[in-house]
Amino acid sequence: MSPKPLDYESLNENVKKVAYAVRGELYLRASELQKEGKKIIFTNVGNPHALGQKPLTFPRQVVALCQAPFLLDDPHVGILFPADAIARAKHYLSLTSGGLGAYSDSRGLPGIRKEVAEFIERRDGYPSDPELIYLTDGASKGVMQILNTVIRNEKDGILVPVPQYPLYSAAISLFGGSLVPYYLEEEANWGLDINHLRQSVAAARMKGITVRAMVIINPGNPTGQCLSEANLNGLLKFCFQENLVLLADEVYQQNIYQDERPFISARKILLDMGPPMSKEVQLVSFHTVSKGYWGECGQRGGYFEMTNIPAKTVDEIYKVASVSLSPNVPGQIFMGLMVNPLKPGDISYLRFVAESTAILESLKRRAHIMTDGFNSCRNVVCNFTEGAMYSFPQIRLPPRAIEAAKSAGKAPDVFYCLKLLEATGISTVPGSGFGQKEGVFHLRTTILPAEEDMPAIMTSFKKFNDEFMEQYEDYRGYSRM
Amino acid sequence: MSPKPLDYESLNENVKKVAYAVRGELYLRASELQKEGKKIIFTNVGNPHALGQKPLTFPRQVVALCQAPFLLDDPHVGILFPADAIARAKHYLSLTSGGLGAYSDSRGLPGIRKEVAEFIERRDGYPSDPELIYLTDGASKGVMQILNTVIRNEKDGILVPVPQYPLYSAAISLFGGSLVPYYLEEEANWGLDINHLRQSVAAARMKGITVRAMVIINPGNPTGQCLSEANLNGLLKFCFQENLVLLADEVYQQNIYQDERPFISARKILLDMGPPMSKEVQLVSFHTVSKGYWGECGQRGGYFEMTNIPAKTVDEIYKVASVSLSPNVPGQIFMGLMVNPLKPGDISYLRFVAESTAILESLKRRAHIMTDGFNSCRNVVCNFTEGAMYSFPQIRLPPRAIEAAKSAGKAPDVFYCLKLLEATGISTVPGSGFGQKEGVFHLRTTILPAEEDMPAIMTSFKKFNDEFMEQYEDYRGYSRM
Repeated sequence: MSPKPLDYESLNENVKKVAYAVRGELYLRASELQKEGKKIIFTNVGNPHALGQKPLTFPRQVVALCQAPFLLDDPHVGILFPADAIARAKHYLSLTSGGLGAYSDSRGLPGIRKEVAEFIERRDGYPSDPELIYLTDGASKGVMQILNTVIRNEKDGILVPVPQYPLYSAAISLFGGSLVPYYLEEEANWGLDINHLRQSVAAARMKGITVRAMVIINPGNPTGQCLSEANLNGLLKFCFQENLVLLADEVYQQNIYQDERPFISARKILLDMGPPMSKEVQLVSFHTVSKGYWGECGQRGGYFEMTNIPAKTVDEIYKVASVSLSPNVPGQIFMGLMVNPLKPGDISYLRFVAESTAILESLKRRAHIMTDGFNSCRNVVCNFTEGAMYSFPQIRLPPRAIEAAKSAGKAPDVFYCLKLLEATGISTVPGSGFGQKEGVFHLRTTILPAEEDMPAIMTSFKKFNDEFMEQYEDYRGYSRM
Repeated sequence: MSPKPLDYESLNENVKKVAYAVRGELYLRASELQKEGKKIIFTNVGNPHALGQKPLTFPRQVVALCQAPFLLDDPHVGILFPADAIARAKHYLSLTSGGLGAYSDSRGLPGIRKEVAEFIERRDGYPSDPELIYLTDGASKGVMQILNTVIRNEKDGILVPVPQYPLYSAAISLFGGSLVPYYLEEEANWGLDINHLRQSVAAARMKGITVRAMVIINPGNPTGQCLSEANLNGLLKFCFQENLVLLADEVYQQNIYQDERPFISARKILLDMGPPMSKEVQLVSFHTVSKGYWGECGQRGGYFEMTNIPAKTVDEIYKVASVSLSPNVPGQIFMGLMVNPLKPGDISYLRFVAESTAILESLKRRAHIMTDGFNSCRNVVCNFTEGAMYSFPQIRLPPRAIEAAKSAGKAPDVFYCLKLLEATGISTVPGSGFGQKEGVFHLRTTILPAEEDMPAIMTSFKKFNDEFMEQYEDYRGYSRM
């Protein structure tokens, strides 16, 4: 009998090709162990609230009031809600046509897109047009929509950093394009080398691939670096010369843990360059409410901003966005709150600042505890997490560990991470899920476990790692490189 | 100079092919007129809250508390919230791991999927497995994911009713498949004729198309009919014989305005049939919080349930869902509330019943006012809206109106609907956006304008229509067929 339409053998091949390591084998095994009663420390996804981070009070008050607008007419509302939250809820409700239960325009509420444009202008020093800002259900949905617009067939190539966040490889597979890797330089603090970029493009062209877009993730995921101004400048020139649209994943722009290299948006650098480049290079930039000190992942709020994209294309993107009607409205309001925060003098201002500073300062300390912890381990080296939410230590596996992995039918880093999970409950993602240079192994953890748990986690990691290395280093001794 | 990657001429052709009438030319023109100060009655989208429908109080109280969990510790919470809303908020928060700000499992929260399964079991009389229920950001996202899984290339055909809700044609274009139309029979109350279905499949096969799936929308959009048990039985047998997966869009299952043909799910009919069919026919059923008497469109909550889909495929669908991490969590909680409503004896029960009954009863009255109003107009005939939220009158355009449309460079129904919009502010969708038999014209309106406004709207419509007909009927007289 012939297979049925939804039997595995008759599915869309692009669907089957998708790989998504962040919730892959390690995550599934961790979920199993959790069901069996083992305590699991989930560091596989940047999901701060799941690891105990408390939501910021003010935005939650505002959105709660928007969900229950009848409270605004209740004479007792002031007992539970401060006046500025009440005022802000009224403001956002006035931007909707029918409250949170009505579909918005498919691009998002015009009033919130205006607030986003004002935020971008304050950040970059250049005006931004709300008509070129589309709100989305989290940044991932925006990235997917743009990739779907760019990719025509398997001969269209997208330059993606390696290591990369696997959203990119997954979406490129799903839409039937080709991923063209460019390697980040671990020794140069995960910066990028324009000559290598050029070689990647040349190699792709030799295979008949038209490279059409370049992805950057700044601050980096999983690598945690902040790209330098010189790097951004160089890659924008490269996009200009090579006729590439730049997709700038800047979702971690609020997560910066050092002062030497502040976040600078790709858009600011581009506009600083002046014509012809500032008028020519096509750029789409992504942001979200899931990261920063907000961590409101479950709300699914985000936006993308288009620079130098022709009106006809903007219309096409609008049309496709319309097919799924509108991004969720509460998530849009979180986006508004994020880009238009409280100001000095507002009743809730001091509390808001105290809460957000506490989160950011703690993340910064956790970044240090983790990096230092990894660097104290045998055969482990790790760059400092300058930004974002991840630590990406290199694990120098002894040859006998690699052989043992092979016998177990596992990639060496998967083998290591599974052993780590079984021994300690720490659920990480093997570096191979993000792309790796040949013969080099990493793992990714978030820096999100509660600060008070962090020393114990790093002690537990070190104990596992050092015993693992002991076990697999041969008797001749395996010297740390 | 060669076009840039996001110039119109170099976009993905499938993106360009997408057509989406619900927010097409008429909607854009209506938005323009609104900006110019004209009062517009938006009946183009089933968006109840935008037309004044109030949200149900209890679910909004629960979700507001989930957004502001710190209120649950406030001794004054009982002043603003009833005890059952507080209890329910605690229940849903206990199902999350980290509240609304944490990503859930990519399939949705297990506890809510269990509540959905229990609802389906109560509705159909057969147990349902939570592992085969995936929560989504509204039903549209689920439909798109399943179509993306089924469609491999342009030779894969999807049977879609005509007239249809244009989500289907749009998504099939986007994923590069072929739409295979089957016509609903206006004279048979928009039922379907299995012989015609067979002819559609045969005609598609002649063109080399492999028909893989069949879509039904029950209750119908835009056509408002409830499919009979005999119709459902026949089409399920047809799917069995022809090896088609059935996609059952059942988002209007709570919107029923007559007693002769209650809603029956495709799943119940399938399981009633017994083996081999009940074990063989692949079925995916869709539901949402956007419709019913909830109308919570902006929250974007929905689910799909899979029947007879092999585990390996279920895993693939999980994997692809993981790429965008998780559906929004507040929308999941609305889904939970919808499938697990209050029970007699609960503090808020009577209020909840009063609110929901008032909405449903009013919708029923509006369905009558609209149908009767249309049928009182010259050259307009309209089936009764048995279910869903739409009225789909046939407009019998005189030949001179068709000529005038041609001269204006418009499709005849678009011409009529634009004139209607300019004259009355009523924003409808031309029937051609849903597919039409050759030479037959309709428009779609929702039945959602406020009940007190309805008589004036229908009077205004009748005045416009009858004058329009007067103007374009030639002197020989154009007799109503």
